[in-house]
Amino acid sequence: MRRAIYPGSFDPITNGHIDIIERALKLFDEICVTVAINPLKSPLFSIHERIELIKKALQERSIHDHVKVEGFDGLLVKFAKEKKACAIIRGLRAVSDFEYELQMALMNRRLADEITTVFMMPHEKYTYLNSSIVKEVCRFGGDITNFVPTAVKEALLKKMGF
Amino acid sequence: MRRAIYPGSFDPITNGHIDIIERALKLFDEICVTVAINPLKSPLFSIHERIELIKKALQERSIHDHVKVEGFDGLLVKFAKEKKACAIIRGLRAVSDFEYELQMALMNRRLADEITTVFMMPHEKYTYLNSSIVKEVCRFGGDITNFVPTAVKEALLKKMGF
Amino acid sequence: MRRAIYPGSFDPITNGHIDIIERALKLFDEICVTVAINPLKSPLFSIHERIELIKKALQERSIHDHVKVEGFDGLLVKFAKEKKACAIIRGLRAVSDFEYELQMALMNRRLADEITTVFMMPHEKYTYLNSSIVKEVCRFGGDITNFVPTAVKEALLKKMGF
Amino acid sequence: MRRAIYPGSFDPITNGHIDIIERALKLFDEICVTVAINPLKSPLFSIHERIELIKKALQERSIHDHVKVEGFDGLLVKFAKEKKACAIIRGLRAVSDFEYELQMALMNRRLADEITTVFMMPHEKYTYLNSSIVKEVCRFGGDITNFVPTAVKEALLKKMGF
Amino acid sequence: MRRAIYPGSFDPITNGHIDIIERALKLFDEICVTVAINPLKSPLFSIHERIELIKKALQERSIHDHVKVEGFDGLLVKFAKEKKACAIIRGLRAVSDFEYELQMALMNRRLADEITTVFMMPHEKYTYLNSSIVKEVCRFGGDITNFVPTAVKEALLKKMGF
Amino acid sequence: MRRAIYPGSFDPITNGHIDIIERALKLFDEICVTVAINPLKSPLFSIHERIELIKKALQERSIHDHVKVEGFDGLLVKFAKEKKACAIIRGLRAVSDFEYELQMALMNRRLADEITTVFMMPHEKYTYLNSSIVKEVCRFGGDITNFVPTAVKEALLKKMGF
Repeated sequence: MRRAIYPGSFDPITNGHIDIIERALKLFDEICVTVAINPLKSPLFSIHERIELIKKALQERSIHDHVKVEGFDGLLVKFAKEKKACAIIRGLRAVSDFEYELQMALMNRRLADEITTVFMMPHEKYTYLNSSIVKEVCRFGGDITNFVPTAVKEALLKKMGF
Repeated sequence: MRRAIYPGSFDPITNGHIDIIERALKLFDEICVTVAINPLKSPLFSIHERIELIKKALQERSIHDHVKVEGFDGLLVKFAKEKKACAIIRGLRAVSDFEYELQMALMNRRLADEITTVFMMPHEKYTYLNSSIVKEVCRFGGDITNFVPTAVKEALLKKMGF
Repeated sequence: MRRAIYPGSFDPITNGHIDIIERALKLFDEICVTVAINPLKSPLFSIHERIELIKKALQERSIHDHVKVEGFDGLLVKFAKEKKACAIIRGLRAVSDFEYELQMALMNRRLADEITTVFMMPHEKYTYLNSSIVKEVCRFGGDITNFVPTAVKEALLKKMGF
Repeated sequence: MRRAIYPGSFDPITNGHIDIIERALKLFDEICVTVAINPLKSPLFSIHERIELIKKALQERSIHDHVKVEGFDGLLVKFAKEKKACAIIRGLRAVSDFEYELQMALMNRRLADEITTVFMMPHEKYTYLNSSIVKEVCRFGGDITNFVPTAVKEALLKKMGF
Repeated sequence: MRRAIYPGSFDPITNGHIDIIERALKLFDEICVTVAINPLKSPLFSIHERIELIKKALQERSIHDHVKVEGFDGLLVKFAKEKKACAIIRGLRAVSDFEYELQMALMNRRLADEITTVFMMPHEKYTYLNSSIVKEVCRFGGDITNFVPTAVKEALLKKMGF
Repeated sequence: MRRAIYPGSFDPITNGHIDIIERALKLFDEICVTVAINPLKSPLFSIHERIELIKKALQERSIHDHVKVEGFDGLLVKFAKEKKACAIIRGLRAVSDFEYELQMALMNRRLADEITTVFMMPHEKYTYLNSSIVKEVCRFGGDITNFVPTAVKEALLKKMGF
């Protein structure tokens, strides 16, 4: 049984993240979506809200099996080892992502050689998509229907007082 | 059974390639090292030589099982479908790699949606390593012992008339 | 009549921005310099001050016609539509600019297909110039005469208590 | 009357190029598609064929007015001056494009200050698309229907002996 | 006598920094390690602590001569001129470093033409290493023995309450 | 006595190269301009012509002392060791330069640890300048007076039959 963890802030989950999860499910026996409890920037949604939104998003897409969602705090590779994961999955969209991700992958390899970071690219229609841009567009009244699951759209509109 | 193909020119295989193969074997049940018969640039080694060098290199590292080595010509995703592979593995070292690889990954996804390109990063000590640099260093009499398997070193020295 | 908006923080306007405005005036019938009222980082100059400095800078260069200066808040493409603009102008200096700008251009195209983002490059002598660097140099007592209009230089020196 | 030239090899024209032309027509009164007679790499299609394919492609999209197609040889800015063009249009897809384009734009500005290079980004679905990749996919029997106009698809299939 | 300054935040010094210092000592007669008193981000260690850690780190490596360590505040090129330095040394690891460094080098050249910025690359085993990553790994209980001098490791563990 | 080598194709030398040489002379006691006899691409000027043009260019700028010009063939670090050089100087203009240069610097460090590669940035007015662009502009009849020394301009015009 091969398990991979897919770590991130998911503040909130977008259609780009779901695209990565759907494809990762074809490569691994189980994906553990791993939500950073305390990301560096103060998140819009609480850890509890972010986990719930991921679960609702997976239900919307009829993804029921082989995916777990958990919060985590601390050193990522330690968590991966506890979970007996063989891989850390990261989405790559742009060159600026790439360099930071390369540094983290090399550092994580140094800290835990048995875990491999694998990078996947989201569909090109999600190239410009990330949680920050979605929040900014929503804040200013732009339509985010095509960018996030329904549950996330509703949560964002409510959070921003629309 | 999950099979992944690892395509390339392998002209010749280096320690960086072998690092990727060793790590990929932990993620997939079988790796098919797929050697492009007619790469765009005219190769130093023939397709037969390149395949033989890969096989010898794998033996040197005691990698006996779950790896196949084959030549291929044509559209990569067609080959991957015939092999019933779920993934194409690519090594990523630098930003300039990244952009070309991103384009190919998106194009391949468009041509065969069921196959996912996954990127892996070689150990940082291979960051500066590629087949072209190894050939250039060898041509000018530099020592390549640390960069390629023994069989490849001998083949390179012989090919260059040392 | 073709109108383009040129959005930014302009905290404060530099000679690089003016270079873009002067060239854009040859391509469009009217340029609307659009000052973000609430940029993410807290600005050094108030929205009122930033608009006044732009107006003074344009006067210094004898740019009197076909340019408007306005503050704006909210979704940029909505503002562009209200202004009946056909284009959003952005300056491009570096690769790191490029990726963020590409994401915003694709997102804005998705939100308002009738508006096109066009990128222009400032003169190479402004490659290293941006508002942050100018403020940093001025704060430490460096000479900024060549980087900003006279009115901006005076305002910066006053603001920083020289 | 503002005219812009859109130079390139167009070997052959793709849907990405047409996307740029369609958007440029909203910004300028006339677009002159300018086909390099002798691009550095030996082209697959002759200059005559490339011009004919562009004309057929424009007809397919019902683009009849405000576009001219011409071959050119020599210094691009000289050609632009003869055509009384105010702008050179270039598509930007990737960081690697960006740096070369920046160099050329700065050089052209030095050679002819009155002409401005403007960059536009194609739709994200054309991010991975360029003439070389289309030719490669076609050569190996991949389906290129979504990437080029019908006339170009037919010409490519014929040229490659299918 | 040729003196070079090596400026930075050094919050704290890492093995990557020391690698640069050791190599710079072969090129210049004296290196002045120049610690920014007030870096933009609030530092973990005080200016006094950062200077002490650098001094201890140099002792650990038996680097006794031709190196000075000083704090500085203000415009870097002014400091360099006071020190009669002919060069500013900067480490380059990644593309994202590169662009910011290019801008600063060009600005500094404009402000003080007699001082030249030279860039050096740390050993590839330090490619992924910077002070922020070391602090993050240490905070979460990862082993940092290979990344920093002993004195720095002890100071970090103490500061973080281990 | 500290000597540095400055290797390149110099096909032909441009004002950007000379800018690097002038600044390097302030940092080292002697600069050895090292002309690759057999660069990968077939050069426009012979090795003899390229060396002569460099010598004439240095005379034009009144650079008489502390510079040598030599051809070389083989492994660069071997040549540097024979010359008892402590440094290899490389100009850095763009991100695409940067990655290739990083790879070569790391490889050369591996092959000869006692030699350090140092990077310098040319004046921003030479950002867009390289030998290929100068040759292309000259070929099409553009004015290259500002880009190369007089002797090089004359040699280029003669070589291209003007």
